[in-house]
Amino acid sequence: MRDLSQDSRWFAVNSATVKAWTLEQLVEGCKRAGVSAIAPWRDIVQACGVEKASRLIRDSGLAVTCLCRGGMFPAADEAGRRAALDDNRRAVDEATAIGAQCLVLIAGGLPKGSKDLAAAHEQVRDGIAALLPYARDAGMPLAIEPLHPMTAADRACVNTLAHANDLCDELGEGLGIALDVYHVWWDPDLPRQIERAGERILTYHVCDWLVPTRDLVFDRGMPGDGVIDLKHIRAMVEATGYAGHIDVEIFSTLDWWKRDPEKVLRICLERHRTVV
Amino acid sequence: MRDLSQDSRWFAVNSATVKAWTLEQLVEGCKRAGVSAIAPWRDIVQACGVEKASRLIRDSGLAVTCLCRGGMFPAADEAGRRAALDDNRRAVDEATAIGAQCLVLIAGGLPKGSKDLAAAHEQVRDGIAALLPYARDAGMPLAIEPLHPMTAADRACVNTLAHANDLCDELGEGLGIALDVYHVWWDPDLPRQIERAGERILTYHVCDWLVPTRDLVFDRGMPGDGVIDLKHIRAMVEATGYAGHIDVEIFSTLDWWKRDPEKVLRICLERHRTVV
Repeated sequence: MRDLSQDSRWFAVNSATVKAWTLEQLVEGCKRAGVSAIAPWRDIVQACGVEKASRLIRDSGLAVTCLCRGGMFPAADEAGRRAALDDNRRAVDEATAIGAQCLVLIAGGLPKGSKDLAAAHEQVRDGIAALLPYARDAGMPLAIEPLHPMTAADRACVNTLAHANDLCDELGEGLGIALDVYHVWWDPDLPRQIERAGERILTYHVCDWLVPTRDLVFDRGMPGDGVIDLKHIRAMVEATGYAGHIDVEIFSTLDWWKRDPEKVLRICLERHRTVV
Repeated sequence: MRDLSQDSRWFAVNSATVKAWTLEQLVEGCKRAGVSAIAPWRDIVQACGVEKASRLIRDSGLAVTCLCRGGMFPAADEAGRRAALDDNRRAVDEATAIGAQCLVLIAGGLPKGSKDLAAAHEQVRDGIAALLPYARDAGMPLAIEPLHPMTAADRACVNTLAHANDLCDELGEGLGIALDVYHVWWDPDLPRQIERAGERILTYHVCDWLVPTRDLVFDRGMPGDGVIDLKHIRAMVEATGYAGHIDVEIFSTLDWWKRDPEKVLRICLERHRTVV
C-alpha cells in the first residue's frame, strides 16, 4: 500500500468537488495548489469548448484521470436509446480530446413509467455493448461505475461491484470499472469483488459517508468526516495492483459547495495525506 | 399467486403506517375497517402496557403477524452489547405475550466511533446467536430483516437478502427472514435469493420507492405510488410457498403521517386489492 503522507502525486481533484469553478479556474487553482491531476465533468469541458479545453489542459500538463460521465442508457423508446448512444459517442470524443485516461459511465435508472428493473439492466448492457466498438476504435477505455442502491430508480441500476464485474465478464475488452467508495463501502461482498475486479479498476474515487446523511445525492462528506474505512478499502484496491490516482469527488449542496473552492481543495489535499 | 382483488384476508397493517394511533385506536380502527391482522411496533405495545395489550389483542381476535422490532446488536463495548441482548430478550417476551407470529430483528449499524464494518457484522451474528436459545425456548421465531444499504451506518449493517440467508445458514433453527420490498427491490440477485430463502420468509412487508426520495428513512411511498414492481416480487415470494399476511409498512413524515389514519388505512386496503 502506497504511503501518501508525504506525497500528493497520486491526488486528483474531481471538478464536482470544486463545483463553482470553471475549467479555466480549475486549471489555475490546481497550479496554485500544486495539484497534478483532474477529473472533470462534461459540463465544464463543454462550457469551455472542447477544443479550447483540450489546449488548456495539454498546456497545463495536468493528467486527466477520467471524464465524468457518460451512460444513462435506458429510455422509454428506441429514439431515446439512440439519443443516449449518440450522446455517449460524443462523450468518447470529448474524453479523447482532453486526453482522459477513461470515460466514466453510470448506468441510468428505470425509464419513465417503467417498473421493469430486469429490462433496464438489459438496456444498460445493450447500450454499453453498442458503445464499445466506437470506444475501442478511439482507444478510450470505458469505466462502468456501480452507484449506491439508493440511486437505482433514477440514476443508475448497476448498484454493486459484482454487477459491474458481470458486465465486464460479458462485454470484454475495453470495459473496466470506476470504483467510488461512497457507493460500495457497505457491501459485505466488497473484498471478494475487488479481488475479482483486479486490473479492471481504471479509476478510484473517494469521499465519505456522513451520519446522518441528509440527502440521497448531495450530502457526501470530505474524506475523514464519515464512517468509511478508507485506508482499508484502498489497501484492498492497491493489492490488486492499482497504482493510479485517487480522485476526491464530493457532491455537497449543504456544506462543501458553499465554501471557497480554493480552501476546499487545500482540505482535500490535507486529507489525502492523512486519512485516504 | 393469490388473487387479492376480492380478498383482504391477507392484509395486515403495520402500526408505523398509522403512527398517530395508540394500540387501542389501532385495534378499534381495524375493527371498523374490517382488517384482521396487525404488525405493531414495540412503542405502542409498551405505551399500552404489555399485559393490557395482550388482553386487548386477544379479545379483538386480530392476528399479529410480527412484532417490530428487536435487534440493534452492535455496541462500542461489552456492557452495550449486554444491554442490547437484555432488551432483545424483553422483546421476545413481549412478542410472546401478544401472540406475535415472529419477532422482527434489524441488525444495527456501526458502533459509535467505529468504521469496522466486518466487526459490526460479527457482533450482529454473535448477538443473534446469543438470543436464539432464549427465543427457541419461548417458541418465538426471529426474523432478520435486511435493510436498505443506505441504512448500513446507523441502522442496520445486514443489507442484502444474501447476507440474511447466510446468517440463517450459519445460525440454524429459529431464525428466519422478514422481507420488506423497500429494502431489496433494487437487488439484481433478488430472484435467486428469494428462492434460496424459501420457507425462511416469515413475514412480508410492502410499501413503495418514491422518485424522488426526499429522506433516507421517512419518505416511503404508498404501494402503487412508486417504482417497485410489487406484483412481480410477491409472485416470487409466493412461489416459495409463502401464504402469510402482507404487511403495509410506511414511514412518511412528509405525507402519510400527516393524514387521518382512518383514511390512510382505507387507502392501504384499496391498494392491497389493486397493486400489491
